[in-house]
Amino acid sequence: MCKIRVTIWNEFRHEKSNETVKKLYPEGMHKAIADGIAADDLEIRLASLDEPQNGLSPEILEQTDVLMWWGHCHHQDVADEVVKRVHQRVLEGMGLIVLHSGHKSKIFMAVTGTSCSLKWREVAEKERVWTVEPSHPIAAGVGEHFDISNSEMYGERFDIPQDGEIIFMSWYEGGEVFRSGVTFKRGHGKVFYFSPGHETYPIYYNPEVLKVLSNSVRWAKPVYWGKTNCPNVKPLEAIATKEIDLSYLPSRLK
Amino acid sequence: MCKIRVTIWNEFRHEKSNETVKKLYPEGMHKAIADGIAADDLEIRLASLDEPQNGLSPEILEQTDVLMWWGHCHHQDVADEVVKRVHQRVLEGMGLIVLHSGHKSKIFMAVTGTSCSLKWREVAEKERVWTVEPSHPIAAGVGEHFDISNSEMYGERFDIPQDGEIIFMSWYEGGEVFRSGVTFKRGHGKVFYFSPGHETYPIYYNPEVLKVLSNSVRWAKPVYWGKTNCPNVKPLEAIATKEIDLSYLPSRLK
Amino acid sequence: MCKIRVTIWNEFRHEKSNETVKKLYPEGMHKAIADGIAADDLEIRLASLDEPQNGLSPEILEQTDVLMWWGHCHHQDVADEVVKRVHQRVLEGMGLIVLHSGHKSKIFMAVTGTSCSLKWREVAEKERVWTVEPSHPIAAGVGEHFDISNSEMYGERFDIPQDGEIIFMSWYEGGEVFRSGVTFKRGHGKVFYFSPGHETYPIYYNPEVLKVLSNSVRWAKPVYWGKTNCPNVKPLEAIATKEIDLSYLPSRLK
Amino acid sequence: MCKIRVTIWNEFRHEKSNETVKKLYPEGMHKAIADGIAADDLEIRLASLDEPQNGLSPEILEQTDVLMWWGHCHHQDVADEVVKRVHQRVLEGMGLIVLHSGHKSKIFMAVTGTSCSLKWREVAEKERVWTVEPSHPIAAGVGEHFDISNSEMYGERFDIPQDGEIIFMSWYEGGEVFRSGVTFKRGHGKVFYFSPGHETYPIYYNPEVLKVLSNSVRWAKPVYWGKTNCPNVKPLEAIATKEIDLSYLPSRLK
Repeated sequence: MCKIRVTIWNEFRHEKSNETVKKLYPEGMHKAIADGIAADDLEIRLASLDEPQNGLSPEILEQTDVLMWWGHCHHQDVADEVVKRVHQRVLEGMGLIVLHSGHKSKIFMAVTGTSCSLKWREVAEKERVWTVEPSHPIAAGVGEHFDISNSEMYGERFDIPQDGEIIFMSWYEGGEVFRSGVTFKRGHGKVFYFSPGHETYPIYYNPEVLKVLSNSVRWAKPVYWGKTNCPNVKPLEAIATKEIDLSYLPSRLK
Repeated sequence: MCKIRVTIWNEFRHEKSNETVKKLYPEGMHKAIADGIAADDLEIRLASLDEPQNGLSPEILEQTDVLMWWGHCHHQDVADEVVKRVHQRVLEGMGLIVLHSGHKSKIFMAVTGTSCSLKWREVAEKERVWTVEPSHPIAAGVGEHFDISNSEMYGERFDIPQDGEIIFMSWYEGGEVFRSGVTFKRGHGKVFYFSPGHETYPIYYNPEVLKVLSNSVRWAKPVYWGKTNCPNVKPLEAIATKEIDLSYLPSRLK
Repeated sequence: MCKIRVTIWNEFRHEKSNETVKKLYPEGMHKAIADGIAADDLEIRLASLDEPQNGLSPEILEQTDVLMWWGHCHHQDVADEVVKRVHQRVLEGMGLIVLHSGHKSKIFMAVTGTSCSLKWREVAEKERVWTVEPSHPIAAGVGEHFDISNSEMYGERFDIPQDGEIIFMSWYEGGEVFRSGVTFKRGHGKVFYFSPGHETYPIYYNPEVLKVLSNSVRWAKPVYWGKTNCPNVKPLEAIATKEIDLSYLPSRLK
Repeated sequence: MCKIRVTIWNEFRHEKSNETVKKLYPEGMHKAIADGIAADDLEIRLASLDEPQNGLSPEILEQTDVLMWWGHCHHQDVADEVVKRVHQRVLEGMGLIVLHSGHKSKIFMAVTGTSCSLKWREVAEKERVWTVEPSHPIAAGVGEHFDISNSEMYGERFDIPQDGEIIFMSWYEGGEVFRSGVTFKRGHGKVFYFSPGHETYPIYYNPEVLKVLSNSVRWAKPVYWGKTNCPNVKPLEAIATKEIDLSYLPSRLK
């Protein structure tokens, strides 16, 4: 059996500059996620912003089946050409899992075509994640709901397109609601956005969160790789030779 | 009553360089469309690629309720910042009508998030446009189907997202099918793609095509203008002061 | 201008049997709604379960553009033939607004094709209704959110199809979330479900709730009436006369 | 590994009354399909209209993971209680594959909530099935298109809900188009409609058609069984005890 080749991409700057984050994730959130979802059918690689080509060279992408993305304050530092390359790879079949503040990443706005704007608040409040679609593979083994003791609040209106299938919806202590787990398809690639994951809380050690991420990787695994060219094709049926019909043309132009 | 401010944007190069196109559309396809949909409730302006700022300065966009777009061989000559400006205006509420070869325009790929690739063939074959959603305002007054005597064939697979509501589907003499009229919503703006409209055929004089475009402008008219910022908000409910819950943190990090 | 002919249907039994409900709605919830949304462009009629033909004879339906529906404990007392008649009218173009406990009405389950099941609790808790789609006509003039001081809780998972466009989502004091305002299209008819409206609370006097209902009637107004027959049609293109191709038929059958 | 338990249901009357059909399908279309998709991971059972309980007793349904349905002239002879039982089983997780003239079956209209009406013509014309979603499991191994030499024409407008994901679209020699392969989800069950399959043509021996049906069974396999009850639940958060807020109540009722 071929392993699923997962690349977990992380901005990986908070962990170096912020003491709280450094204590929680000394090797980076991407490493905590990698450890948390490690399994025999996964081949996991880490990548981050300050590596050459932002860690996402053509060679690495070609060896990636599913890309997970965590970014926050430095979305603008990801090169446009890297974003185009990732986008193209999604359209050809690669899975894309976008986490938390990645809602404003260039790549998520590119695949959705929207601003992905939302309301937010950071007061360590409680978030309750409700499973809306229990028969979706991403929700397998997740109960009717699970709680995250401390979370950054992300609230509606979330500006995403209407083809987002809602897998999870969240309730917040402070009074908001949010579509916290949503899937899309773009080209031949599957896309999943999952909002829990603030860097100053230990969310990526939460077993329910890890189960969701773990499920999402299997769900997003490519089953088909396709091209996105525009082929010029020959007719399959005979075309009656004909003049151009000018009957609607204004008389002054005839 | 306020008029709907419509800007019809055209690449407007074929009409200068190609004799066939020049004869059909001596003042440009945008002018033919403007004449064809002229009505008391519309205030129509023309814009084109070779004007300053590609004809779409911030001032012009701010005075545009619905933007119609025809582009073909020179998509790459539209400045990225102009595309971003148009995209932002769509998210805030402006209607966008994308025509024919505009399927590969930067703006349509930006709002869909897909490659918008398709099959094509140019042999002047017959296209029959079927009305799939007769109760949609864009189809008002259009019959069960109408024929276009000569058309460029655009065939499936058309790479667009699944939230495209299908208003029209086309049959081609040469054996293909196509989702030829499809709507989307992005942010607060409505988007309509309509495929008939090849430059070397007099399609923009066809009364059924003009009726569809005419309907689409009224349908896409903004009813709400919104911003796409991410506000930081105060809680609406009391938050119990609390410690960060570290129970899932690995013991080595505690 | 033609008025929109609205029929507000109510089970109208709680108001006779329950003292609390009788005090809040002495003439019925349908009458409170009718008074609350009264306007020059609406022609409102009341109907209820214990009238002949459950208040929905063919004649009344033929004079109805938009039907509003409140039912609760006596869904089973609505005759199947009445439900079929209403359903058929929706498919032909009539608008349908389903309220609160009408989620388990025969007609709502018929148009959705699902069980419409949900979680519930009746403890007079606070509900906050969030506007998810502010540019939708049903949300016109409604703010970012509004509160209902006392509400019956309806919680996810709500078993509805995925083409439900979410206009409102609710937060509940007790910890749940819900897609509280959702639209569908079935045939040529528009359908809107709105969950606030428990009979023992004065919800149908709430100005925000009335604004939503008022908007929904205008949105659901039919713009096209169509039939749902299956016509046998003649070919539009010549069919080459041909034998039946039996090449795949198993040889034992040739 | 557990086998997928497939029940192929057939009206099974044409094969007895019509000589053409009898010659093509002496043991019934359901038997031809069963032979055509037979595989080690499938446990296939046949059922038909004239068996007790229309062949679909509670016991049989409880042992069915995926139900395939072919009906035509005798939809009305399927008992309503059988339809309700099948519908309930779909909502709980069973897959449902509806074939050809089954578009007007009670069960398909029940799960879609629409009339499922369409245009039709029976002149043995050519149908070309185009793959719209090549990365969908139902299209696995099917090429860009395949032809059916003789088919009954089914044409748009096809009255189905907008959450139908289009896998295949058909072109007809006589000039129509059709959404010929469409998926839905209802409750926890997956639904696939596939239009090719007229009884007087040997369509169920076509290897491409059999591949589609074969794929669809694996795709529709249940991954989760759920109930559709409406549980009364306790609050997860403390509810502040409170009076009913009567501030909006008209003064005459206070």
